[in-house]
Amino acid sequence: MKGTVGELGEFGLIRELTSRLTTTPAVRLGPGDDAAVVAAPDRRVVASTDLLLEGRHFRRDWSTAYDVGRKAAAQNLADIAAMGAVPTALLLGLVVPADLPVTWPTELMDGLRDECQVAGAAVVGGDVVRGETITVSITALGDLRNHEPVTRSGAKPGDVVAVTGWLGWSAAGHAVLSRGFRSPRAFVEAHRRPEPPYHAGPAAAGLGATAMTDVSDGLVADLGHIAQASKVRIDLRSADIDIPTQMSDIGQAVGVDPLQWVLSGGEDHAIVATFPPDAKLPARWKVIGEVLNPSALPQVTVDGAPWTHGGWDHFGDGEGTEER
Amino acid sequence: MKGTVGELGEFGLIRELTSRLTTTPAVRLGPGDDAAVVAAPDRRVVASTDLLLEGRHFRRDWSTAYDVGRKAAAQNLADIAAMGAVPTALLLGLVVPADLPVTWPTELMDGLRDECQVAGAAVVGGDVVRGETITVSITALGDLRNHEPVTRSGAKPGDVVAVTGWLGWSAAGHAVLSRGFRSPRAFVEAHRRPEPPYHAGPAAAGLGATAMTDVSDGLVADLGHIAQASKVRIDLRSADIDIPTQMSDIGQAVGVDPLQWVLSGGEDHAIVATFPPDAKLPARWKVIGEVLNPSALPQVTVDGAPWTHGGWDHFGDGEGTEER
Repeated sequence: MKGTVGELGEFGLIRELTSRLTTTPAVRLGPGDDAAVVAAPDRRVVASTDLLLEGRHFRRDWSTAYDVGRKAAAQNLADIAAMGAVPTALLLGLVVPADLPVTWPTELMDGLRDECQVAGAAVVGGDVVRGETITVSITALGDLRNHEPVTRSGAKPGDVVAVTGWLGWSAAGHAVLSRGFRSPRAFVEAHRRPEPPYHAGPAAAGLGATAMTDVSDGLVADLGHIAQASKVRIDLRSADIDIPTQMSDIGQAVGVDPLQWVLSGGEDHAIVATFPPDAKLPARWKVIGEVLNPSALPQVTVDGAPWTHGGWDHFGDGEGTEER
Repeated sequence: MKGTVGELGEFGLIRELTSRLTTTPAVRLGPGDDAAVVAAPDRRVVASTDLLLEGRHFRRDWSTAYDVGRKAAAQNLADIAAMGAVPTALLLGLVVPADLPVTWPTELMDGLRDECQVAGAAVVGGDVVRGETITVSITALGDLRNHEPVTRSGAKPGDVVAVTGWLGWSAAGHAVLSRGFRSPRAFVEAHRRPEPPYHAGPAAAGLGATAMTDVSDGLVADLGHIAQASKVRIDLRSADIDIPTQMSDIGQAVGVDPLQWVLSGGEDHAIVATFPPDAKLPARWKVIGEVLNPSALPQVTVDGAPWTHGGWDHFGDGEGTEER
């Protein structure tokens, strides 16, 4: 693949991008018409949208286009799974500078496609326009398979809080990268390419989850969204939160308490949910806290006390670095 | 509403935006959770996405934020209608500079909401991030109500070509605005705020339309997409294409053949479709041409001859002006 997107032109680029796609039985009509048609057997469709900007959500010197694609798809597909739904489809809006090598958007598309395949979904449509800042806009769709959507507002005092997936790995990887290192590889990889436990979302709905979200802003911040929507307090037990040895080692090396990565680091897209106390949870779910009545304390506490390292405000001073 | 979006912050802005929304019975879960849930009674969902960039697709000195919202929603909802579907929902991705007055995104949202109401849909979710260039990313969803989707590929030789809605009004308005005028008001308004005939899309599906699209790039260009996908030629009869007197007057004033606006002007989002020759079309549909076997001629001809003013390439030299 040679040349820039400006040389290739809009229609040429769209041809290049769509030629790389795969499909699924749920895709009734893929790219190339006014709109796509996707199966929604449940008679409802779950939909979520996110934007990623170069310099703000990714850096071309830290992440390949392929990894940006994997990550952009993952964060949207995880939102679908966190409602208890099975991801079905993804739409892409892409802003590209005219001087961008064609390989960047094509590798981005490869990443989107492959992450969709992991989740059982497919890219079904999109739009490409020329602009100054690379911008990746993703909309993901999903099917509830006759489960009621698991919102953030159903947690009840007495429920347990359980999590599945990776926590703090992306943040630890970010800490490593921002200090100029490229290893340990597992954490750098986790930062570049999260692995949300897609299957766990619909499974949690089947297990009776009362509230659920994916961890995109950080465990405490995202549980705060559940606590606020459900009008409850959530207390986490730090002793029940596993910190991998390797993560402790990095923490020691860079002078950061790794519990901070686990409790405040986002972007791993673990799935956290509340369940009735008698729910039978498979081993992949780790119970890490409980739902309590609201009190004068903050809505999310750790070992009964406030936790001070909060989530991320997208209008904060993050310019020029990758948001976590 | 005072201040900038940077002063208000991400969560404050999201609160402002979502507080302005209305809902419909199809919205099972609106903004505020990981994803929205929208009814899809047909067991299929139609989905389309588009990006609009400041300086490229709109100018703040030509269009209010409200008008940009109306237009952004209209062009996406028209894509849904052009499949033969009824629009149900819209998702918004929004990039805003920190120094942008809060009134801009709130008025944009008012425009999105109001255009959705015209089409029977509702804004159900979105994402807001800070960036340099105002970018509006829209995804629209729709329901086919048991019609098969009307694609671009079903036109057959012998079919008639019929159109409903406005043609060339936006282009004439653009010509007026780009020469520094603000009137005639009807055309300037048409450029700022198209009025797609949403109802006509599903109606055409019911009338047996064999192929359909909305006119976003220009009548000849968009019929070219149908001709190409259907492997046919389409011939338009210029004598059957109405040119309003007022449009002829503008054409004379600015030295442009108004037929050019009607045949090449996009953004009015008229709906053009092909029908079997015996289809009983209501009066709002105007038959303007016919579908023929492919030949050595271009895929779309006017009065049997090539038409030279084509559509718009989004990677062309449009920088700094509004795309049509």
